[in-house]
Amino acid sequence: MIVNCAAYADGRRVADIDLEAVSDYVAKDGYFVWIGLHEPDETILRKLQDELGLHELAVEDARRAHQRPKLEEYGSSLFIVLRTAIWDDGANAVGVGETHLFVGSRYVVSVRHGNTLGYADVRSRCEAVPRLLHHGPGFVLYAIMDAIVDRYFPVVDALEEELDKLEESIFGPQVERNVAERVYDLKGEVIAAKRAVSPLIDVCNRLARYDQGLIDEEVRPYFRDVYDHVVRINESIDGLRELLTSALEANLSLVSIRQNEVMKTLAGWAAIFGVATLMAGIWGMNFEHMPELKWAFGYPMALGIIACAATLLYWRFRRAGWL
Amino acid sequence: MIVNCAAYADGRRVADIDLEAVSDYVAKDGYFVWIGLHEPDETILRKLQDELGLHELAVEDARRAHQRPKLEEYGSSLFIVLRTAIWDDGANAVGVGETHLFVGSRYVVSVRHGNTLGYADVRSRCEAVPRLLHHGPGFVLYAIMDAIVDRYFPVVDALEEELDKLEESIFGPQVERNVAERVYDLKGEVIAAKRAVSPLIDVCNRLARYDQGLIDEEVRPYFRDVYDHVVRINESIDGLRELLTSALEANLSLVSIRQNEVMKTLAGWAAIFGVATLMAGIWGMNFEHMPELKWAFGYPMALGIIACAATLLYWRFRRAGWL
Amino acid sequence: MIVNCAAYADGRRVADIDLEAVSDYVAKDGYFVWIGLHEPDETILRKLQDELGLHELAVEDARRAHQRPKLEEYGSSLFIVLRTAIWDDGANAVGVGETHLFVGSRYVVSVRHGNTLGYADVRSRCEAVPRLLHHGPGFVLYAIMDAIVDRYFPVVDALEEELDKLEESIFGPQVERNVAERVYDLKGEVIAAKRAVSPLIDVCNRLARYDQGLIDEEVRPYFRDVYDHVVRINESIDGLRELLTSALEANLSLVSIRQNEVMKTLAGWAAIFGVATLMAGIWGMNFEHMPELKWAFGYPMALGIIACAATLLYWRFRRAGWL
Amino acid sequence: MIVNCAAYADGRRVADIDLEAVSDYVAKDGYFVWIGLHEPDETILRKLQDELGLHELAVEDARRAHQRPKLEEYGSSLFIVLRTAIWDDGANAVGVGETHLFVGSRYVVSVRHGNTLGYADVRSRCEAVPRLLHHGPGFVLYAIMDAIVDRYFPVVDALEEELDKLEESIFGPQVERNVAERVYDLKGEVIAAKRAVSPLIDVCNRLARYDQGLIDEEVRPYFRDVYDHVVRINESIDGLRELLTSALEANLSLVSIRQNEVMKTLAGWAAIFGVATLMAGIWGMNFEHMPELKWAFGYPMALGIIACAATLLYWRFRRAGWL
Amino acid sequence: MIVNCAAYADGRRVADIDLEAVSDYVAKDGYFVWIGLHEPDETILRKLQDELGLHELAVEDARRAHQRPKLEEYGSSLFIVLRTAIWDDGANAVGVGETHLFVGSRYVVSVRHGNTLGYADVRSRCEAVPRLLHHGPGFVLYAIMDAIVDRYFPVVDALEEELDKLEESIFGPQVERNVAERVYDLKGEVIAAKRAVSPLIDVCNRLARYDQGLIDEEVRPYFRDVYDHVVRINESIDGLRELLTSALEANLSLVSIRQNEVMKTLAGWAAIFGVATLMAGIWGMNFEHMPELKWAFGYPMALGIIACAATLLYWRFRRAGWL
Repeated sequence: MIVNCAAYADGRRVADIDLEAVSDYVAKDGYFVWIGLHEPDETILRKLQDELGLHELAVEDARRAHQRPKLEEYGSSLFIVLRTAIWDDGANAVGVGETHLFVGSRYVVSVRHGNTLGYADVRSRCEAVPRLLHHGPGFVLYAIMDAIVDRYFPVVDALEEELDKLEESIFGPQVERNVAERVYDLKGEVIAAKRAVSPLIDVCNRLARYDQGLIDEEVRPYFRDVYDHVVRINESIDGLRELLTSALEANLSLVSIRQNEVMKTLAGWAAIFGVATLMAGIWGMNFEHMPELKWAFGYPMALGIIACAATLLYWRFRRAGWL
Repeated sequence: MIVNCAAYADGRRVADIDLEAVSDYVAKDGYFVWIGLHEPDETILRKLQDELGLHELAVEDARRAHQRPKLEEYGSSLFIVLRTAIWDDGANAVGVGETHLFVGSRYVVSVRHGNTLGYADVRSRCEAVPRLLHHGPGFVLYAIMDAIVDRYFPVVDALEEELDKLEESIFGPQVERNVAERVYDLKGEVIAAKRAVSPLIDVCNRLARYDQGLIDEEVRPYFRDVYDHVVRINESIDGLRELLTSALEANLSLVSIRQNEVMKTLAGWAAIFGVATLMAGIWGMNFEHMPELKWAFGYPMALGIIACAATLLYWRFRRAGWL
Repeated sequence: MIVNCAAYADGRRVADIDLEAVSDYVAKDGYFVWIGLHEPDETILRKLQDELGLHELAVEDARRAHQRPKLEEYGSSLFIVLRTAIWDDGANAVGVGETHLFVGSRYVVSVRHGNTLGYADVRSRCEAVPRLLHHGPGFVLYAIMDAIVDRYFPVVDALEEELDKLEESIFGPQVERNVAERVYDLKGEVIAAKRAVSPLIDVCNRLARYDQGLIDEEVRPYFRDVYDHVVRINESIDGLRELLTSALEANLSLVSIRQNEVMKTLAGWAAIFGVATLMAGIWGMNFEHMPELKWAFGYPMALGIIACAATLLYWRFRRAGWL
Repeated sequence: MIVNCAAYADGRRVADIDLEAVSDYVAKDGYFVWIGLHEPDETILRKLQDELGLHELAVEDARRAHQRPKLEEYGSSLFIVLRTAIWDDGANAVGVGETHLFVGSRYVVSVRHGNTLGYADVRSRCEAVPRLLHHGPGFVLYAIMDAIVDRYFPVVDALEEELDKLEESIFGPQVERNVAERVYDLKGEVIAAKRAVSPLIDVCNRLARYDQGLIDEEVRPYFRDVYDHVVRINESIDGLRELLTSALEANLSLVSIRQNEVMKTLAGWAAIFGVATLMAGIWGMNFEHMPELKWAFGYPMALGIIACAATLLYWRFRRAGWL
Repeated sequence: MIVNCAAYADGRRVADIDLEAVSDYVAKDGYFVWIGLHEPDETILRKLQDELGLHELAVEDARRAHQRPKLEEYGSSLFIVLRTAIWDDGANAVGVGETHLFVGSRYVVSVRHGNTLGYADVRSRCEAVPRLLHHGPGFVLYAIMDAIVDRYFPVVDALEEELDKLEESIFGPQVERNVAERVYDLKGEVIAAKRAVSPLIDVCNRLARYDQGLIDEEVRPYFRDVYDHVVRINESIDGLRELLTSALEANLSLVSIRQNEVMKTLAGWAAIFGVATLMAGIWGMNFEHMPELKWAFGYPMALGIIACAATLLYWRFRRAGWL
């Protein structure tokens, strides 16, 4: 699907065009074309390939998706694959999508796949500052990457919130049976996020140092900025991962401690009932000469002794923290 | 065993030849020879060595198999060892094989060992696009490596499916005794797959940058493509490994939690029976003056008290989640 | 908020100026300006940007804070982001702040954010040694970084003290239920400290090797000194992290050992009561021909036998370390 | 002890000589000397030092042994320390020895220490192929290193066999008490093997790239071959190490699961006996008005009820998998 | 405190001098001065700084101690910080000290801090071989570093001995409660040792490659020797660390296995007593028609049945390994 296709000159949008007209504008000095696609079919991509002279393999990749984030140079043009992430509140999971970018000196093509937001807002923000858009495709590339990277922050926040909830479950008063499963699931999400983010570091770093004409000298510090953001996101994710591991260990430790407590309670009550039952058993023996059995207050006395022993034991266990 | 031996010119198969004729075709300009072998005996390899001038050590390696994936240069020819993997559904295990490749400017020899599929399909696909096969042995090398790497994907999928089944066992309602063993076995498979894949990264990377005449400039991006696939497979395997470790920990944590529950249940019933038995014991004592023993409704009352106490305890334990 | 703004010449403070006058002093040979800001609003930063020609992106970063520690070169000036740490005794937590530094050949601007101490003491210490302050902004940069890094030492000390307390709880005679939570919380603090410190290593290292005119040859060894301190702090934090992991494991091991002891105690008393209750039960049977029941001393004998058996068992369990 | 000392020319042994004659042969063009020593005393080493001009420090190292594997260049000669390993079937342990090699353009000296096999077989295999021995000391060095590395394979096989036995113990039907100790001991062996092998990687790699005259261009690929073997051995050892860690974890997990089963069994029987004993206790109470006590079939009925209750409980626990 | 201060020429001690005379000897060709200090006060260091022209920062570091091991170049002189270790038998702990070295072309100054042995023996050993001492300060530097590194070996031996004792405790017949604490403490010691040793690797490596005039070409191989020793010590410490981690895990596993055994014993005896008590309870019921109660041999028969049942159960549990 073609979402958007426009020609720009001097940092301003000059025309909304269609695919057939792309090669005309690309041929004009001072013009560049910015095309937004969403899960395009093969015919659209083939047409683009003819109009812009894209490399066979890059078009293949853009069609099939499921690529690793990477930066490929084909002659003087770049092909960039990025993974995007959004937090899916319903599924409590990270939704990973892909954006592929073809960048030449006079064109930018973005191809979105899967669970990913569009770049209409990026386009309008760019058009609002002609001074910067004037730098051409290099700046558009920055704007899109910046948007992609910024969209990771709420994902990281959501993951951290999940961890907070987990911590409450772990250190709360109840042993919750599904804590282990939730830690495991969250770890899966974190690994997915990590896998999406970490190759971006290399891509951003290479773009910040990219020495050829495609990216203006003045635009390059912007890529360093994106690079810093990516590194920060990556750091947060690593921190999450480490804390999750610790959380599972802490959980295991707590379960053991609670088990210890249950066992002490069990042992305590077993002792109290054991003593009481033993006494009742003794006075239930059938010996003929058991003088206390004949006493008028034998029975209340027996009950009293049993109650005393039980209370004494209870009090001692209480003091020892067993009950 | 000689599986296939043919001469090519201009991207087309020109003749099916036998080993004696190989050196004739190799001497002709514009021709190249593509030979497929499967666990060849020494005589075949020696004959090939004479016809193509292969290096002693490479031939030794190709005969004995059990090599590490590697890329060796002997003069202007390459010797490449790759590990192949297929998923053996019966054994629920990764079947690892080996393919050795001799690549010169006018010949490609593939030698298969062990549990590995043939390359007949690769050959017919190559022959279908003379435009690309025209690039000669370099392209054939790409085609075979691409096939080998693509065959890893179903292996990774099968491993991930095994992990899914394991997760169901772990987080399911039953404690399954063999979970630990299955995690351990799966970990062994993952380590085997990892050991097969990870040296491929280096081999592909070196081929993508290989600067000498053997591989055409236009073919090189194809090796970068293979490189990307290998890196993705490697990433998936690393993810699997990490999740397996977490799965075992989660399992341990769950077993402990379940033990806790069993223990609480045990403690709860022990308390209920303890109280009831104690009461029965008390009324079984042989004191002479136990007035309730003589009451007409003493017995039903006693049964009622015992039942009440047990019910009360049961209800309290129930509320506390112990029963 | 503008905290301080002064012009220096020949290593001495020559005037307290305001922002409008900054560009005048910066234009004079032999003069430099040192400005201290605390969470400045946008107007102040914009004015500074005009006066000193700071880079757009650096000003953006300084305004928004929450940056990663980094060192950026914009033309001949440096932009440095550092994380500061203080130990918050009340919250038992590391309070992390940020300091951003703009350093040019004739100016230093420090921008503090969040939980961070001021640099008035740094300024007065610098002014006390005109011989060194004479080296200009490069030396001021050193002085501020040295102060920031030195303020990490009490944080590390506090963390180590917390670990000491934890060790006492873990290896003390009581099982404390919240040990796992405290280990987990402390680990979170250590990870936060680590994340603040570790990027400083790279920043200091690059400054110690920084070859351009901004930092005098004689000042460079001072940065190596700061570098050494950062590395030492980093090492201490890594040591803490490793010990924390071991502490949690040791705790788990101890909890298990204690559980073992509780269980042995439980088993021991269960056996003693079991034997005694069994005997009482036997003599409580209603057989007609149980001669001992008629003996005059049958009852004391029975009590004696029960006591003996219990004592014997007690003594044996005692010796085996079960009770 | 001097094991062997011979002069070679043109790839053939020309004379068995003694130490005094070494310097004569070393001086002759086209000759080289190959000396094999086993734990030599200082006099022999000092004589050799005089005859061949060996470096003081190398001789010191060779005398004292207990060196790390390393490759040192002293002028145009090499000093190489290698660790050797054999599997000691009696002790079920890796026996580590050392071989030191002095290699100059006209001599090779091997010094063996500790638990290590001789190189007589290497010598005879070399003498069988004068074509290769013709390359001089460089080839002899290869032959000895190849032998040392090949002798690691049976060690790795033995370690893997030990792991197989351990796996059987761990996943077998019995909880074996010494599993943890055996895992620990095997881990110690694996660490020892790892420590012997891993520095060899660097030594072989450097020799494969060693550019000076000592090693012929044609001999260098042979060192790459040795390098590949070492890397493979190292990989196997790493795999072992990882599996051992998993084995211990799996063991822990299994022990917990079995404990769970024991506890359920305990709880089940406790419940059955608890119910039965309670009923017996109730009918043992001394109330006057307990009509069932007077029924003719009261006793069999009571026994029947008790048996029924026990059977019912047994059957339910059985179905729940507790018994 | 000034321990020693002497001037050397031609590898021989020519005079014991005091600090004021140092600059005279340093000015003379062919002479060098070797000064040994122990926790010197500021005046001594200041005097030395004047006499030898030491760098401000180096003197600061030497005065305050608590530095990281490092190698700093100040112009043509070196400042080296090393950590020393001795094993404190009383405290069962590693005692860490520091030695700082100033090395110029005509002077060596060693400054000792904390728990560290003197270098009198190094001095006398050096003076015994004028041939080597002739190389000047470079050789003295080697001699001191060699001594420091050699003193690590007994520390490593002591740590390994501690681990041996721990292993005996862990795998011995008794569960020792303080094993976890001892493992934890030993780990702390190992981390301390590691922190002292590992930066030495870099220092030694840089000295072995140090290309400037300070260290003679012939002396450099000696530093490679020291480097090898440091690497070996570091390896041993890493091995210790890994084994300690395994030891704690093995301990945890063993505690669990022992708990399992205790629980089986508990379950076994509970079952035996349960059966016996149940039978006694049944014959203690008050039914009128219980014919066996009237049999002459009813009582012995009951005792016999109870004993038989208990024996049977005992024998079965015994065979199953529960008792």
